[in-house]
Amino acid sequence: MNDGHQSLEPIAWIRTPFRDKFTVPRQSGLVNQAKGIIQFCPDFADADRLQDFRAHSHYWLIWGLHLHQHTDKSLAVRPPRLGGNQKTNVFTTRSPFRPNNLGLSAVKLDTIDSAHQQIHVMGVDMVDNTPIYDIKPYLPYADSINSATSTWANSAPVRCFDVRYRETARQQLTQYEQQHAVPVMPLVSELLAHDARPAYHGKTAGKTAGRSAEKIADKATPASPRIYYSQIYTLAIAWQVEGDTLTVLSATELSAVELSTAKLSATELATNQSEIKKPINPS
Amino acid sequence: MNDGHQSLEPIAWIRTPFRDKFTVPRQSGLVNQAKGIIQFCPDFADADRLQDFRAHSHYWLIWGLHLHQHTDKSLAVRPPRLGGNQKTNVFTTRSPFRPNNLGLSAVKLDTIDSAHQQIHVMGVDMVDNTPIYDIKPYLPYADSINSATSTWANSAPVRCFDVRYRETARQQLTQYEQQHAVPVMPLVSELLAHDARPAYHGKTAGKTAGRSAEKIADKATPASPRIYYSQIYTLAIAWQVEGDTLTVLSATELSAVELSTAKLSATELATNQSEIKKPINPS
Repeated sequence: MNDGHQSLEPIAWIRTPFRDKFTVPRQSGLVNQAKGIIQFCPDFADADRLQDFRAHSHYWLIWGLHLHQHTDKSLAVRPPRLGGNQKTNVFTTRSPFRPNNLGLSAVKLDTIDSAHQQIHVMGVDMVDNTPIYDIKPYLPYADSINSATSTWANSAPVRCFDVRYRETARQQLTQYEQQHAVPVMPLVSELLAHDARPAYHGKTAGKTAGRSAEKIADKATPASPRIYYSQIYTLAIAWQVEGDTLTVLSATELSAVELSTAKLSATELATNQSEIKKPINPS
Repeated sequence: MNDGHQSLEPIAWIRTPFRDKFTVPRQSGLVNQAKGIIQFCPDFADADRLQDFRAHSHYWLIWGLHLHQHTDKSLAVRPPRLGGNQKTNVFTTRSPFRPNNLGLSAVKLDTIDSAHQQIHVMGVDMVDNTPIYDIKPYLPYADSINSATSTWANSAPVRCFDVRYRETARQQLTQYEQQHAVPVMPLVSELLAHDARPAYHGKTAGKTAGRSAEKIADKATPASPRIYYSQIYTLAIAWQVEGDTLTVLSATELSAVELSTAKLSATELATNQSEIKKPINPS
């Protein structure tokens, strides 16, 4: 420990609606409907102590960006807030591509389930099955710094889109909600209202190197706009953008095989629906 | 990484005025005069990128509670805010005795020294030479949660004491300030105004098991109140409390040998002053 190196052991894991990095909210608290279930590991689950969480309304989570393996030492990233083209020091951003792969999120306490060593929280911004290394109370007198300023991230990202649903999508989502007793539509509406697309797509469409979104997006043709897929629970939500309107085209339940593949094509989505699974994370 | 274990490498080290755990402010931002110098490690020091820190006024530091080695798995701690006697879940507290030994502090940016790969910050609450694992900007729109509530830590700890100086102490501090060009008196005044004593000392003096403060405090006699020592830079500040008044008795410069010992007695302080050192951390 003299050289400052330290090893971390998960104290809990968080289950969230997000099955891939694309579409995960860009900050905690942005999408209130994004619910997470924190499942404590056996060594750190004391049912008698779980009710203590009632003391505060919000908590900080320190967690592992476990899908990112930061290998190069480059300190420069291109945050979406700066248009996706301008480089800045990673430590002046919340970019997920960072040394030590540590995430920090403020979440709101929802309910406590002592019987299952779980606490339920709102406003999560991590993918499903993320390891949690520490939880600390949000202390309003110390953490809410009203005088804090930022030159390029002072206000919340604008909700860009009016989210609409094709009739097919609405029916599929309603059916899913009834089947699994989990409200998906409010989450999808809140989530997609923010622009999840890479900064170099859309109006500023350009030539910058890839991001996962591109891999799972069908190529746009001059006639029809590009179709994107977001995985929410076990659903592949297909959507496209025209002007200020985002239209959800369909919400197709995925098989276990599809859930384990990062790259989805429209064909795969249409053909392999034999293995309908219950969502891993119904509330 | 499948089991969620992760290893951390310092990206920087922070130099602070605090040479022992006793007297370190109980939260970041509480003692504005507490200045820290973040020295980036060579791999993470890009002089060209250091000016980027100007973009935001405050930053989060994720750091290692490297003096604490949490070995037992007990989740229950007794925070001072609950009187020091009531147990609660460690994850509902900011106690330094926690699994994974991770600290989280919001600090204010002061100055940037690109030539030395340093940034200077204010409001630190860690001991000198603490490893830093990540730095993230404080984003007002996401991090300043005005609606957050807490049942037992809603307001800042009260400044309990009117801090006074014996003439000897005042002279010693003035001399130190002139010699090292570092303002110590404002820091001492702000720092000691909060009650650094363990909850079981003072009015509620009791019999609870020890904390480091006790080890370095001379035993009180019925005639005179207990004397405490706080190490600030290379000074041993001796102080005592009577009613609402805290009196700084002396400020003695320590030798390198004394600085490396955790346990100080008044005798040692009085006798071994041969090796006067420059402070490691003058600004």
